[in-house]
Amino acid sequence: MDKSSLTFLFCNANYDEAKTVLFGAPFDGTTSFRPGTRFAPMVIRNESYGLEIYSPYQDKEITDFKIFDSGDLVPNVGDVKAMIDSIASFTKQIVSDGKMPVMIGGEHSLSIGTIQVMAKKYPDLHILHFDAHTDLRDTYYGHKFSHANVLYRVWEMLGDNRIFQFGIRSGDKEEFAWAKKHVVQNKYNTNGLDEALERVKGKPVYITIDYDVLDPSVFPGTGTPEPGGISFHELLEAILKFKGLNVVGADVMELAPHYDQSGASTAVACKILRELLIAICK
Amino acid sequence: MDKSSLTFLFCNANYDEAKTVLFGAPFDGTTSFRPGTRFAPMVIRNESYGLEIYSPYQDKEITDFKIFDSGDLVPNVGDVKAMIDSIASFTKQIVSDGKMPVMIGGEHSLSIGTIQVMAKKYPDLHILHFDAHTDLRDTYYGHKFSHANVLYRVWEMLGDNRIFQFGIRSGDKEEFAWAKKHVVQNKYNTNGLDEALERVKGKPVYITIDYDVLDPSVFPGTGTPEPGGISFHELLEAILKFKGLNVVGADVMELAPHYDQSGASTAVACKILRELLIAICK
Amino acid sequence: MDKSSLTFLFCNANYDEAKTVLFGAPFDGTTSFRPGTRFAPMVIRNESYGLEIYSPYQDKEITDFKIFDSGDLVPNVGDVKAMIDSIASFTKQIVSDGKMPVMIGGEHSLSIGTIQVMAKKYPDLHILHFDAHTDLRDTYYGHKFSHANVLYRVWEMLGDNRIFQFGIRSGDKEEFAWAKKHVVQNKYNTNGLDEALERVKGKPVYITIDYDVLDPSVFPGTGTPEPGGISFHELLEAILKFKGLNVVGADVMELAPHYDQSGASTAVACKILRELLIAICK
Amino acid sequence: MDKSSLTFLFCNANYDEAKTVLFGAPFDGTTSFRPGTRFAPMVIRNESYGLEIYSPYQDKEITDFKIFDSGDLVPNVGDVKAMIDSIASFTKQIVSDGKMPVMIGGEHSLSIGTIQVMAKKYPDLHILHFDAHTDLRDTYYGHKFSHANVLYRVWEMLGDNRIFQFGIRSGDKEEFAWAKKHVVQNKYNTNGLDEALERVKGKPVYITIDYDVLDPSVFPGTGTPEPGGISFHELLEAILKFKGLNVVGADVMELAPHYDQSGASTAVACKILRELLIAICK
Amino acid sequence: MDKSSLTFLFCNANYDEAKTVLFGAPFDGTTSFRPGTRFAPMVIRNESYGLEIYSPYQDKEITDFKIFDSGDLVPNVGDVKAMIDSIASFTKQIVSDGKMPVMIGGEHSLSIGTIQVMAKKYPDLHILHFDAHTDLRDTYYGHKFSHANVLYRVWEMLGDNRIFQFGIRSGDKEEFAWAKKHVVQNKYNTNGLDEALERVKGKPVYITIDYDVLDPSVFPGTGTPEPGGISFHELLEAILKFKGLNVVGADVMELAPHYDQSGASTAVACKILRELLIAICK
Amino acid sequence: MDKSSLTFLFCNANYDEAKTVLFGAPFDGTTSFRPGTRFAPMVIRNESYGLEIYSPYQDKEITDFKIFDSGDLVPNVGDVKAMIDSIASFTKQIVSDGKMPVMIGGEHSLSIGTIQVMAKKYPDLHILHFDAHTDLRDTYYGHKFSHANVLYRVWEMLGDNRIFQFGIRSGDKEEFAWAKKHVVQNKYNTNGLDEALERVKGKPVYITIDYDVLDPSVFPGTGTPEPGGISFHELLEAILKFKGLNVVGADVMELAPHYDQSGASTAVACKILRELLIAICK
Repeated sequence: MDKSSLTFLFCNANYDEAKTVLFGAPFDGTTSFRPGTRFAPMVIRNESYGLEIYSPYQDKEITDFKIFDSGDLVPNVGDVKAMIDSIASFTKQIVSDGKMPVMIGGEHSLSIGTIQVMAKKYPDLHILHFDAHTDLRDTYYGHKFSHANVLYRVWEMLGDNRIFQFGIRSGDKEEFAWAKKHVVQNKYNTNGLDEALERVKGKPVYITIDYDVLDPSVFPGTGTPEPGGISFHELLEAILKFKGLNVVGADVMELAPHYDQSGASTAVACKILRELLIAICK
Repeated sequence: MDKSSLTFLFCNANYDEAKTVLFGAPFDGTTSFRPGTRFAPMVIRNESYGLEIYSPYQDKEITDFKIFDSGDLVPNVGDVKAMIDSIASFTKQIVSDGKMPVMIGGEHSLSIGTIQVMAKKYPDLHILHFDAHTDLRDTYYGHKFSHANVLYRVWEMLGDNRIFQFGIRSGDKEEFAWAKKHVVQNKYNTNGLDEALERVKGKPVYITIDYDVLDPSVFPGTGTPEPGGISFHELLEAILKFKGLNVVGADVMELAPHYDQSGASTAVACKILRELLIAICK
Repeated sequence: MDKSSLTFLFCNANYDEAKTVLFGAPFDGTTSFRPGTRFAPMVIRNESYGLEIYSPYQDKEITDFKIFDSGDLVPNVGDVKAMIDSIASFTKQIVSDGKMPVMIGGEHSLSIGTIQVMAKKYPDLHILHFDAHTDLRDTYYGHKFSHANVLYRVWEMLGDNRIFQFGIRSGDKEEFAWAKKHVVQNKYNTNGLDEALERVKGKPVYITIDYDVLDPSVFPGTGTPEPGGISFHELLEAILKFKGLNVVGADVMELAPHYDQSGASTAVACKILRELLIAICK
Repeated sequence: MDKSSLTFLFCNANYDEAKTVLFGAPFDGTTSFRPGTRFAPMVIRNESYGLEIYSPYQDKEITDFKIFDSGDLVPNVGDVKAMIDSIASFTKQIVSDGKMPVMIGGEHSLSIGTIQVMAKKYPDLHILHFDAHTDLRDTYYGHKFSHANVLYRVWEMLGDNRIFQFGIRSGDKEEFAWAKKHVVQNKYNTNGLDEALERVKGKPVYITIDYDVLDPSVFPGTGTPEPGGISFHELLEAILKFKGLNVVGADVMELAPHYDQSGASTAVACKILRELLIAICK
Repeated sequence: MDKSSLTFLFCNANYDEAKTVLFGAPFDGTTSFRPGTRFAPMVIRNESYGLEIYSPYQDKEITDFKIFDSGDLVPNVGDVKAMIDSIASFTKQIVSDGKMPVMIGGEHSLSIGTIQVMAKKYPDLHILHFDAHTDLRDTYYGHKFSHANVLYRVWEMLGDNRIFQFGIRSGDKEEFAWAKKHVVQNKYNTNGLDEALERVKGKPVYITIDYDVLDPSVFPGTGTPEPGGISFHELLEAILKFKGLNVVGADVMELAPHYDQSGASTAVACKILRELLIAICK
Repeated sequence: MDKSSLTFLFCNANYDEAKTVLFGAPFDGTTSFRPGTRFAPMVIRNESYGLEIYSPYQDKEITDFKIFDSGDLVPNVGDVKAMIDSIASFTKQIVSDGKMPVMIGGEHSLSIGTIQVMAKKYPDLHILHFDAHTDLRDTYYGHKFSHANVLYRVWEMLGDNRIFQFGIRSGDKEEFAWAKKHVVQNKYNTNGLDEALERVKGKPVYITIDYDVLDPSVFPGTGTPEPGGISFHELLEAILKFKGLNVVGADVMELAPHYDQSGASTAVACKILRELLIAICK
């Protein structure tokens, strides 16, 4: 029997031996434009069958690491607060068992669930944030917990200059102005990455990747494709530099697989996740 | 300039003269399986361009009636209660101006917004409900205002034997058992329609059509296609029998246009809406 | 080498021996809603590979008949008059060589090209017309040669009561009124077919099938899907009754294959064409 | 954690207690037209999430039965013989453990693997075969084990008048002639089902359903859509009559989910499988 | 009520105050390969909902400018000359009211309509032309007003060295030879842009952008995808250099949205249009 | 009549005068992930209609060369060995008639058929191999003739250092290790091309292009999209350098057109083939 497609890319360590716990968060209830990221964790697992376990970039196999894929959390349909709470509670358990959480979204708002746990445990937490959008609004259509608020909520937990943003190319005027004072924002590309890595060296780091940081030519399968993004190579090179960082958690968010029927976006999502896991797992 | 595509099928009476007000409710935040009904009102308007204004079935043109298409309500992203309130408030205004509201959904939960207003105004209100699903759960994943609860909420307002269901073929065991005692349920088809029409004659009637009452061969463009549904002719024939009823409001729900790239589902949605409006408008 | 996909279903008699000449007319320049029928002849040939040559309905193989598939006419891009002229000129040649023309459209306006030749040769010509739309406007957006005018143009050639329409369910009010006086119109279905066949018995008959006579559930791959159409069985049964008629020409129009990515519409188009050819070829 | 999507519709009994074993056979290596049925078992499991466990038709829940979903067999890429052997060997194990096998294909040739085991165990085995195609060729393009040969291979095992075919509408001339002498063939529909059920009463029965027996309007998601098929209701009614038969095994074959991006075909496949399991499981 | 989706990106100044008038020209009647650009203006308006009004590239909001979106012209189905005349007549009115016209196509031939008005008003007019194709044929399939002739027609109005072409990579041999003598052609990229801008400084400039100048990886949603095109960044950088030019009119042509179901091409079209408007509006 | 679409881009020399013979090999029976390359030859011919015959890159028309498009070989469904034999036999005939074979795949395993003939005729044969995947396994799922074995099989024929690989970015660990000793492998890009061309100068060269060497953003239409590939420009520039080589045969493999409904991948496939033919034909 071939049950390998039930986990991401043969990440089938058992929970006890695992150092990393992968889980899916299939929720997109506050998506303001085109929904569908709820299907990402399932599709990423299914399609990882087309990918090799070996990375020629890092000369490692993902199965060299003890990773447990725990499947998906039950979705709290229509209630983003409950979903975030459920993520936080599961993250807390992973962390208290001495393991690193890696979440597959789902919409970006869900990162509030993981990061609030990490921020409490690591007061010196720093965030590497790859995204097309600033996500820095305090409220959005009256909301405090939508995909557009996530980094603002994180800023409330961590304070100024803890968030390093890369690839940002969309937001409203006020967000860009606000960002100048409170976060380290790299517009359009990853040019400031080396400097950022220098600054977070040795400190606890959480990495949050909104796949839409990639250009829509590379990654059309997302709710709000935003032209002018970075290439696959740019994102890959960034990830390869994570080796050696003190990464304490990560997530990959916002694949909406139905919008790219060719499967290319899903293939990108899978490969980025493989490289990320090899780069940050111990 | 051709601005006709901005309204549904030339329904461009002005508000004051209008006897019927059409509006869109672009929200799908509690959809439990495949989202996307939020795009229905926009797509229905756009694609109505491919439809004639004349119905050979009723030998009438839709422009014979004074209908004002008021566009879409602003979506309350991620907050179904707020969205229902906003619908209720707009419906109240329409009704107090002496006009009949017709809503284009959006997910089925939104019918709670219109029906609560009608139920208050017409204590003797009866519901004709066309759907694949019972929608009769008190709670669903802890929710009271999702697409799966809508007719239960309506039953709370109106009591036993006010809801006539047609085409029902999916639900859990308890719902079907509960239905036997509290509503008049016609499973799989519209066989009991004539008897139902007899019983509601002269009384205020609200008609709620979940497009998924149609078989997926006719209407694949919906979040949860449920095989074994009624044909286009069966639904059309039901609608033609509404002529002469005392209809005080109506809605057409659950088109998710992206799932049917052929456009056939949208064409069905448009034509059903045209026939419904001609049948119930004064 | 397998060159069979270059002709429709092994219709590869040579021209001289052929009694029937099949040709494609890849043009959709006056389509008012969704274009794309220009691709039909090519796709029908390619996909006929998935179909058997044997009809269990008629217990015959299509290769029992001498049919020459002559490929496609060169499209006169943007000039419907020139395209119709080119079709007329090719039809004239086929007819003068003593063969029967069968055209694969393209938009319905092109039937003017074949029928004008047949009408001149057979003053007593009768038309069996299967369509969702009346196509009976004298002018349409100022046009005299669009898909919406084709049967009116034919009426000008042949006069009253020569056109028998089936499956009609869309048009403007005036067309339906006009039809009552000038053509024999069967709305919605093929109920009047037996009577019509009685009337055209022995007379020269041209059959024009707009595939959109079929319900969109059966045939979504067309520019203007019109719900409420006939089933595959209904159309097939009609075709089986053509056996024994004096058919002098035919066409199958308005497949727009890109709108039905499943290929089901194309499969229907191929099978209808196979059955039609077996039924009318000598 | 929500691991329910890893099995079909909560069929998560453990192997020992199970009376029925469901397994996937993801192989389409001899498909002659459009491949893709290899993805069916995975997609059927994933999408079963949109279906209720309760059947209003049979007033039962699928979880009333002890069914173990064992996942997919490893595909023997490019080698149909090896794949059939692997299916036969797994089937033998299921049967020797006193359980009933139910296979989700994959291409139809794979039924040879299950049926050869059942035929050996039950010399009096009878086959109920629902299909668009005769599948009765001895060889096909030199092949003996393709989808076009499957029932001929079965006939070699069982002899004349053991195979009852329903819905057949495609094949070559010789197959239809051969069928008259060796099998009980119902062309186009299920009209002869009651008589067939009478004849197989009490005898061991294997049911093989090629989903393409359904009309392409209902089920476009298959490699060779064949217009003129039966409706969902017709197939459902047939299945409801299986109750009480001595069914010893079954399969559902030939969903190619990629060709129907709407998901409607997959929904049909899921619901047919739910009803089939409820009807034949003990 | 949310009527913002009825105009492009909140371009809802009233006509009188507006300095720029945006209008759609939904016509593709002479398209020689894959039609569908007629749907572009509608889809661009609808999807602009997913875009911010603020440009971080230019640090401006589009609503800083007075732009009136007048909707679509009525299509002259099947008659390109009439359509061009109708565009010319509307352009004349805009220009005589002292406003700048910006057209959303539709096929490229339609630029003849706007440019003929501008050429008459500004005898010294220069053209910046971004395209994959030369569009420099005098006649094309006998046509003088197809998408393949548009720049030749413009050359007839303006004479040698008034047209600057960028990104050109497709055409016939004669066109490329002819171009060397009559226009300033930059093959494959925008390398010569700075020099061109130097030459047109202070002079009246019309900008015509065929979206297919972009590589198909960035913009697959067009009738004739032509590999080897420029990147989004290259086109964006060109647009940012328009600031300060004396632009008197512009158009963006040849989005065929149906060919890119992911919506990425439409997102590119919207963003290019936003940046263009911010760069050239006063 | 327009029969041009029956050959690739007007490659309609007759066999006797032709110096190059193009043929299709529509087979994908050992594809391990997503099948569908069998449809590539047909679709490439059909869609070449949208491409010019003139290359501005090489300032030549493809019709300057005598190329015969012989159509497709008959597929040996389900039997890769038989298919390879059939290709080898046809290749032998082409070569013995003094012509150069160019194959359009189909899956990559089929290159074994052409190369085994060339290797026998030219003992000094060298291979230029463009691919995402190493394809260097001796066996794959027990297979010796799948797409994953092709270059290993070729190495058996030719020995060490005859195969130059470009763009490789996927394989298992052992393959990459093995490659270091036996082939000249350029990972990720075409950087080592000039050196390779130096080494093969004057020697007989066979060029095998797996289209998936291109990045999925450029070419999503393939069975296993592998992110991180080369751009269209990189591949084009490589091809332009083939001018002057002693090329004795070539192939272009692994377009699976159904996965890219936009048609962009097919357009890339067509243009690459045009440029390749102009570069290597005499």
